[in-house]
Amino acid sequence: MTEPSTDAVAGPVLVIGAGLIGTSVALALTRAGVEVLLHDVDAENLRVAVESGAGRVLAGGDRPVIVVVAVPPRIASAVLADASRRFPDATITDVTSVKEEVITGALTLGADPERLVGGHPMAGREVSGSAGARKDLMDGRLWVVTPLSSSGGEHVARVLRLATTCGAVPVEMELARHDAAVALVSHAPQVLSSVLAARLIGSDDEYVQIAGQGLRDMTRIASSNVAMWTDILAANAGPVADVLDGVIDDLDRTRQALRGLATGGESPADDVRLVLESGVVGQARIPGKHGAARTAFREITVMLADRPGELGRLFSAVGVAQVNLEDIRIEHVLGRPSGLVALYVSPEAGDRLSEALQALSFDVRA
Amino acid sequence: MTEPSTDAVAGPVLVIGAGLIGTSVALALTRAGVEVLLHDVDAENLRVAVESGAGRVLAGGDRPVIVVVAVPPRIASAVLADASRRFPDATITDVTSVKEEVITGALTLGADPERLVGGHPMAGREVSGSAGARKDLMDGRLWVVTPLSSSGGEHVARVLRLATTCGAVPVEMELARHDAAVALVSHAPQVLSSVLAARLIGSDDEYVQIAGQGLRDMTRIASSNVAMWTDILAANAGPVADVLDGVIDDLDRTRQALRGLATGGESPADDVRLVLESGVVGQARIPGKHGAARTAFREITVMLADRPGELGRLFSAVGVAQVNLEDIRIEHVLGRPSGLVALYVSPEAGDRLSEALQALSFDVRA
Repeated sequence: MTEPSTDAVAGPVLVIGAGLIGTSVALALTRAGVEVLLHDVDAENLRVAVESGAGRVLAGGDRPVIVVVAVPPRIASAVLADASRRFPDATITDVTSVKEEVITGALTLGADPERLVGGHPMAGREVSGSAGARKDLMDGRLWVVTPLSSSGGEHVARVLRLATTCGAVPVEMELARHDAAVALVSHAPQVLSSVLAARLIGSDDEYVQIAGQGLRDMTRIASSNVAMWTDILAANAGPVADVLDGVIDDLDRTRQALRGLATGGESPADDVRLVLESGVVGQARIPGKHGAARTAFREITVMLADRPGELGRLFSAVGVAQVNLEDIRIEHVLGRPSGLVALYVSPEAGDRLSEALQALSFDVRA
Repeated sequence: MTEPSTDAVAGPVLVIGAGLIGTSVALALTRAGVEVLLHDVDAENLRVAVESGAGRVLAGGDRPVIVVVAVPPRIASAVLADASRRFPDATITDVTSVKEEVITGALTLGADPERLVGGHPMAGREVSGSAGARKDLMDGRLWVVTPLSSSGGEHVARVLRLATTCGAVPVEMELARHDAAVALVSHAPQVLSSVLAARLIGSDDEYVQIAGQGLRDMTRIASSNVAMWTDILAANAGPVADVLDGVIDDLDRTRQALRGLATGGESPADDVRLVLESGVVGQARIPGKHGAARTAFREITVMLADRPGELGRLFSAVGVAQVNLEDIRIEHVLGRPSGLVALYVSPEAGDRLSEALQALSFDVRA
């Protein structure tokens, strides 16, 4: 076994629930040399996780320093409370995507308020299950940590250390603020995507046939796991309803403006314009390549010739130029890839890559 | 100049409006050997289009066989009517994304009902302007053609031929059905994206900071051109309002179910589950890789090692295996690319590619 790095969290760490997030946490801890114990009610999940090198099966007499509960929100409170009883000295935390209901539920069920510190690593994938787990899933991601006023300082410190040991960046947040945040940026968008996709049921084939990339992007998450999302939305019902209040008000105002325009009334197109303008302003707030931090990368756009193998030639050229790609975007037109590939690189590397590609006769634009 | 192919539309074709679509149509026609005349009120647009090889500037005495009006919806009716007067023998068509208001407006303004045949190529890009134009933009895309009951057969045939000459697949549709279709798959989604993005205005930085890929995908089109979209929504106001009726009803029902859950009432989680289930069913109707026709391709998923140059090595291997990629998807986790790359290939090529990649020690999954 690897020697634990000096700044790694002390083990052993027990991970309960060998799904995507649980197994990824276990793999990340193992990578850091921390001893990991695993438990899952599903023997097959457990077997896959152990075989992937995530840790060993929990045995009687094991005394974990931290217990990480990585189970669905519906049962998380009960599992947290049970873990608190079974391991009376351990720090108890979770990775559930809703915090207030789960954590207060665990307290109600008898979890120790001093040792309980909620958490939510902001990492997910479109696949689920331990087979999709990766040791680097949390690398560089935010890990929201939600201490209670009753949480002991050493327990909070341990959960923060757990996050950094897994490669994540911990952020402390109150339970309610966490839930309001994920309602805004994740749970309400899920509802909108589902409701929009539901409009396609019963519509003419002819209509759906002309769907473009915009609809595809907006309904992608509508194909998510129904049982998991029913759980999440039910557990965060109030904050999600609050976001929907605002969405419905704005949609209703837009609909009224459109009805006014359709019937030739006085309703000005300015109301419609205002909604679109607000959308541009709101969208620009999103951090990352689509928002504020976009300027941190240089974008090199390449129009590929319509010949087989051009993508291979392009990426080989990038490799030869020894430029590290921060992101790649292949433009899709009506759901099919087009010849336009955007490469995102550090500003320093931009000119070098651009010149290298032009020297190889690539059609570099912008 | 290239000799026109025998099945190309007869020229010359006049394209009015040298923006993204107009210039792309002109380039596609030029590619097929058709003589193209260009006009734009903006001299700079015109210069860029001519320099890109899209055609020559319209001169006095030119007698186009077809006039393609590629201007914003707000002025399209007037430009169509004017073109009908100036070129009394030409077939008159357009590429506007709204049909009923534009075409009936043109008739009201005096366009010849026999020679007027509306059209809408379903091709667009996130960039706009003639600089983003491409001769292959319409290749394989649908081009909706909306004949009037008064349209002469030879004029309809010419517009259909125009579409195929540009590489597109023509589909005939009634004006109102076209508008209902684009309201559903394009215009209402635009409103939803803008309204959702607008929710981010004034929200805490802390909240926006944890935004993930779902929100990014759902708000991507919120950054679209406001003036263009105000025009489009105003021109298709009634059909868009009709779609919003259904969206608002569903959102309101979901909100009520969530409020019931939040207040511990009797409202069953089944209502929430139903919305999510409907979303899955609706999403699956979208054709292409994310929907029904997805099964037409084999998906080969590869987990890349966290080493520089792995993307280049992967695409080189695909090239060596002489497999044609139908689509590529690079998974993004919280806005950054992850090591998971999905390659979509024809079913016949699937096993061959999978084996070739495994032979090169790639981590091929599923």
